[in-house]
Amino acid sequence: MLEMFTEPRGVAVVGASTSPEKLGYQVLHNIIQYGYEGAIYPINPTAPEILGFKAYASVLDCPDPVDLAVLLVPNKAVPGVIEQCGQRGLKGAVIITAGFREVGPAGKALEQQVVDIAKKYGMRLIGPNVLGIIDTVCKLNASFAAGMPNRGKIAFMSQSGALCTSILDMALGQGIGFSRFYSIGNKADINELDLVTAWAEDPETRAIMGYLEGITKGPDFIRVASEVTRHKPIIAIKSGTTSAGSKAVSSHTGSLAGSEAAYDAAFKQCGIIRAGSVQELFDFAQAFARQPLLEGPNLAVITNAGGPGIMASDAIEHAGLQLASLTSETKQYLQPLLPAAASVANPIDVLGDAPAERYALAIEAALKDPNVNALLLVLTPQTSTQIPETAEALGKLSKQYGKPVFGAMMGDVAIRKGVEVLRSYDVPNYQVPERAVAAIAAMWHQRMWLKRPKLAVEELPADRAKVREVFAKVRAEGRVTMGDTEAREVLEAYGIPLPKTGLAATADEAVTLAESIGYPVVMKIASPDILHKSDIGGIKLNISSASEVRDAFDLLVYRGKRHMPDATIWGCQIQQQVKGGREIIIGVNRDPQFGPLIMFGLGGIYVEALKDVTFRVAPIDRRAATEMLDEIRSYKLLRGVRGEKPSDRAAIVDTLLRISQLVTEFPEIVELDINPLIVFEEGRGVLGIDMRLALK
Amino acid sequence: MLEMFTEPRGVAVVGASTSPEKLGYQVLHNIIQYGYEGAIYPINPTAPEILGFKAYASVLDCPDPVDLAVLLVPNKAVPGVIEQCGQRGLKGAVIITAGFREVGPAGKALEQQVVDIAKKYGMRLIGPNVLGIIDTVCKLNASFAAGMPNRGKIAFMSQSGALCTSILDMALGQGIGFSRFYSIGNKADINELDLVTAWAEDPETRAIMGYLEGITKGPDFIRVASEVTRHKPIIAIKSGTTSAGSKAVSSHTGSLAGSEAAYDAAFKQCGIIRAGSVQELFDFAQAFARQPLLEGPNLAVITNAGGPGIMASDAIEHAGLQLASLTSETKQYLQPLLPAAASVANPIDVLGDAPAERYALAIEAALKDPNVNALLLVLTPQTSTQIPETAEALGKLSKQYGKPVFGAMMGDVAIRKGVEVLRSYDVPNYQVPERAVAAIAAMWHQRMWLKRPKLAVEELPADRAKVREVFAKVRAEGRVTMGDTEAREVLEAYGIPLPKTGLAATADEAVTLAESIGYPVVMKIASPDILHKSDIGGIKLNISSASEVRDAFDLLVYRGKRHMPDATIWGCQIQQQVKGGREIIIGVNRDPQFGPLIMFGLGGIYVEALKDVTFRVAPIDRRAATEMLDEIRSYKLLRGVRGEKPSDRAAIVDTLLRISQLVTEFPEIVELDINPLIVFEEGRGVLGIDMRLALK
Repeated sequence: MLEMFTEPRGVAVVGASTSPEKLGYQVLHNIIQYGYEGAIYPINPTAPEILGFKAYASVLDCPDPVDLAVLLVPNKAVPGVIEQCGQRGLKGAVIITAGFREVGPAGKALEQQVVDIAKKYGMRLIGPNVLGIIDTVCKLNASFAAGMPNRGKIAFMSQSGALCTSILDMALGQGIGFSRFYSIGNKADINELDLVTAWAEDPETRAIMGYLEGITKGPDFIRVASEVTRHKPIIAIKSGTTSAGSKAVSSHTGSLAGSEAAYDAAFKQCGIIRAGSVQELFDFAQAFARQPLLEGPNLAVITNAGGPGIMASDAIEHAGLQLASLTSETKQYLQPLLPAAASVANPIDVLGDAPAERYALAIEAALKDPNVNALLLVLTPQTSTQIPETAEALGKLSKQYGKPVFGAMMGDVAIRKGVEVLRSYDVPNYQVPERAVAAIAAMWHQRMWLKRPKLAVEELPADRAKVREVFAKVRAEGRVTMGDTEAREVLEAYGIPLPKTGLAATADEAVTLAESIGYPVVMKIASPDILHKSDIGGIKLNISSASEVRDAFDLLVYRGKRHMPDATIWGCQIQQQVKGGREIIIGVNRDPQFGPLIMFGLGGIYVEALKDVTFRVAPIDRRAATEMLDEIRSYKLLRGVRGEKPSDRAAIVDTLLRISQLVTEFPEIVELDINPLIVFEEGRGVLGIDMRLALK
Repeated sequence: MLEMFTEPRGVAVVGASTSPEKLGYQVLHNIIQYGYEGAIYPINPTAPEILGFKAYASVLDCPDPVDLAVLLVPNKAVPGVIEQCGQRGLKGAVIITAGFREVGPAGKALEQQVVDIAKKYGMRLIGPNVLGIIDTVCKLNASFAAGMPNRGKIAFMSQSGALCTSILDMALGQGIGFSRFYSIGNKADINELDLVTAWAEDPETRAIMGYLEGITKGPDFIRVASEVTRHKPIIAIKSGTTSAGSKAVSSHTGSLAGSEAAYDAAFKQCGIIRAGSVQELFDFAQAFARQPLLEGPNLAVITNAGGPGIMASDAIEHAGLQLASLTSETKQYLQPLLPAAASVANPIDVLGDAPAERYALAIEAALKDPNVNALLLVLTPQTSTQIPETAEALGKLSKQYGKPVFGAMMGDVAIRKGVEVLRSYDVPNYQVPERAVAAIAAMWHQRMWLKRPKLAVEELPADRAKVREVFAKVRAEGRVTMGDTEAREVLEAYGIPLPKTGLAATADEAVTLAESIGYPVVMKIASPDILHKSDIGGIKLNISSASEVRDAFDLLVYRGKRHMPDATIWGCQIQQQVKGGREIIIGVNRDPQFGPLIMFGLGGIYVEALKDVTFRVAPIDRRAATEMLDEIRSYKLLRGVRGEKPSDRAAIVDTLLRISQLVTEFPEIVELDINPLIVFEEGRGVLGIDMRLALK
């Protein structure tokens, strides 16, 4: 896939220039300098040749073979050039030129024009507004980057072209190689979804790395990425995570959601590993590209210094990994071979005067130990430390035993040679043990992801016709929001248990209803216009007699009218009063990128004061719903604490699945809160008490 | 202070060797090579001279001047040499030799012998078991380190000698300088407290940095460090923080405390900035050593790349700092000077083609802006980026305007020259913006610490005699633990409000008592041997009549006996039943390093399921107690949520202060739990319901 970029037989540089300070020169120079072996055609209306290559006035004049164009012409000229590329039968174009969507409406229109032309000819586009693309496999550097990265097994994409220059420079400094390196800019055509799809099948790529500012097709991306991560890790930085610019929202779920929660949920659901900085992106990518995954979470640490050994152990525990328990065979083998003061427990301390040979003994013993899944070598450059020799030993033994190994040679100048030796054996080195451990933890996370069964969304029975009918009625009345009474009907249609209830238009009807439900009852003002009833005193509890019903009816209607004189007031809702149980909140908010975002948490103070909630993008399966229950900080409360019986977790899971199905089948639902949903003891189910729902 | 190490007029190297592979040679070589200007005396029984310096058979033979000895002799020879040093009138010794406390009881005895001899002569010791000490001011490198750091303003101490080698190497690579660089090993004499005290007054030192595995004199250290941090920052790594080895404990507070909580509390109380890794230690130290503190939390970010600008903004928000709101003057000034596509909002985006001059315009405008407290320059190495020139502009302007500035030039090879230029202006650079922001946040933390009033512990009235009497009685009975009845007396003596209560030895007495207190009452089994009453069903609530009192009395006594046939049972405690309010837990656990560690949290599920608690080392003042209330995640609950009235926070603070005073005045209290303490609405106080106390 996307062979026009990975295996073009010829490249035309449209806007090639004879002036070395121009990008049109630099890009051509890069293509030539770094050894691209296909045909190269500078396109320039006046120059007869550039950098020794014959120039042509237009793409139309290019001889065969030519598959790809790189555009450096002014923005207004781009549509014409793309038209010519189409006519000439080119398959792809990299539009380096800026001045499109990023500069406003006129630019956006221009961009759309370009896309339309390319579509007409079946051409694929990268950009506009990019640094270019680099492919180390076909040795094509079609960019104005200041260098060419080494060939390697990481494919990288970035929405920021400028960041590419930093990443390339760091990669050169650290000897990290790439297979493909694409700046994707405005993503007018090819976006992260296309690249993830293509790179999934790319034999030259072991790990996919990206810098993203937004996802173009959220739901598709989730679907595809969660397949890809099952055989290739995706590591991403997503920036713009903080709340600064997030819009004001009215619902509980909405105010807690924000795009950060959506991205977090989506990435989690796809198995994408999220890096917190460019440094972490590199740290993780190095590990994934160079070492096999861990088969278990048990690490051996070998060190020539106690302090850094402790730091490594601390980091291992904090990261949720474990120090391996070495077998007694390993300990008995090592004991006589190491000095008396050395420690053969894990971390294995080979002491400050350890030569490479002593390190090697410990490394081999640890790698042989069946309890050890991975090895971290910690080294401080002491007087008698043999740094390159120790690196050599680690490298060789890692190849021999095939278990993942990592270096934490701590230093700078003194360890440089050692780091180079490690690199030659594909062993990544980290300047401090904490960074090594973070990378190992990311790999263990990936291993666990691979073990996870695929998403298996069930279809539960539901009365879709009823829901359509309610929505039609609401819309017919020119409304998009609905309160308790209507939302109830919708939830009931999807099998969500609700307390006995009814709507009374008059006080007399209210008494009849209350007596059929049985006292005590709860009464609420019933109005499509009043959404936050408790704020206006529109709810009365513990109503136990006919006269109390009458009093409450009059009071609630009075308060409703006082609050909003123009409100439509249907009367009062009479509801079975629920006793006991624990308050839960389940909500849905529609995220602009990913669609319906389901929130779960304990209700009341837990959501209000502690904001202890978790999110998933719908649809979810039983496993994901169960995980949500265990993800909140207060998860123990549902399992029963202080002698309380456990709550009916299965009923909550069931409710989450029904909500997931509802909002997936009815994408017009943009907001939904059940707050509270009361959960009773195990086996006794749940009841939705108060709810609201809003349509698009 | 400690001039024997910072300004020795002559140094004797005892155990100096003629063989280059021996430490005794390397240390002497370092002293000579790095330019120490005092007298140098190799001490060696056979060699006439070493490395061109006349050797002496013993310290006793050294001519004047000689203040300091560096010992490299075998461990058994150390006491003799120290004796000679004392006789010769030396003032200090650095004992590099290992084989003392770290190897077991015999080594520990040998170490004590050395300390005793030194004390006799008033000599001060560093070590044993160290890399040595380096002083860049007097150019003394009395260590076997592989290099000499640059002179700088950071004083560093490390309990791990091996780590010193890594730190030195990294510092050399990053051009970081030190004033003093001490490996303190076993800390037989001089420990972190001595050095913090000495370096506080050291004009050559602007920041103190340390790697610590334990604190020798916890309470003294807290007292001294919290003074020192008011004029010099202390940045420390404390390793060994995880729970692995922590002992089993019985009380609530004890099980939640652990040494990690104690260190966290202690460091917080001293204003010590804790670094999470060696990398972070360097990142922070560079910032403190090179830049002035921020006067406010408002940062300007100037960038030539959108993506990294967003990353910087994200990091700023996450760190609790703020993007400065630029004044309209600044924006109006910059608008016409920057290209149309540039952003003059903060982050100021000078665009990818920005030359140094354009950066300089933005830098100067931002530094002039009164709303800007500090500046972060983000740079990606793009084609036309003028890296050293931009660094030059930033450096010059930073000197001119005196506000703190930081670099996040992102890259490796391409930015190296720029980083060097920044360094020449004392501007630290960080490879990614996230690291820069973490360092800036640490500086802002320090600035806020400086604004904080000093600890002001009040003395509240207390009946100390009563407490002594209770403790004497308990001890007389051969016990160390006491339950509700006795603990009550102690707490009452310190003015902690308790519900009306009394002890009844018989059912008749119980009825009389209950009627004088008023129904309903709570009854609890009263026994010094039964500490966790509720576990055995030893508490009955809601007792409302004489007959219920009699039933409960018999039942509780029966259960107590069944649970522990040998228990001393005094009868039942009768207590006013408390209605309403919110459960709080206040506890104290004695930490082996720091003494009494006070815990505060909401009781019940909050402590059990959420472990939502916070700690301080006693004594605390009103301010610290108030901060504890606001530090727990569920702090909002005390301020009133969902229409509830706020809790009586002042009464909780008062209780914390009384507990702090009690455990400070009675160090024999090793454990204390008030669980629950009920807090009522604002103005209605607190009541301690259940409590236990244990003596040493």
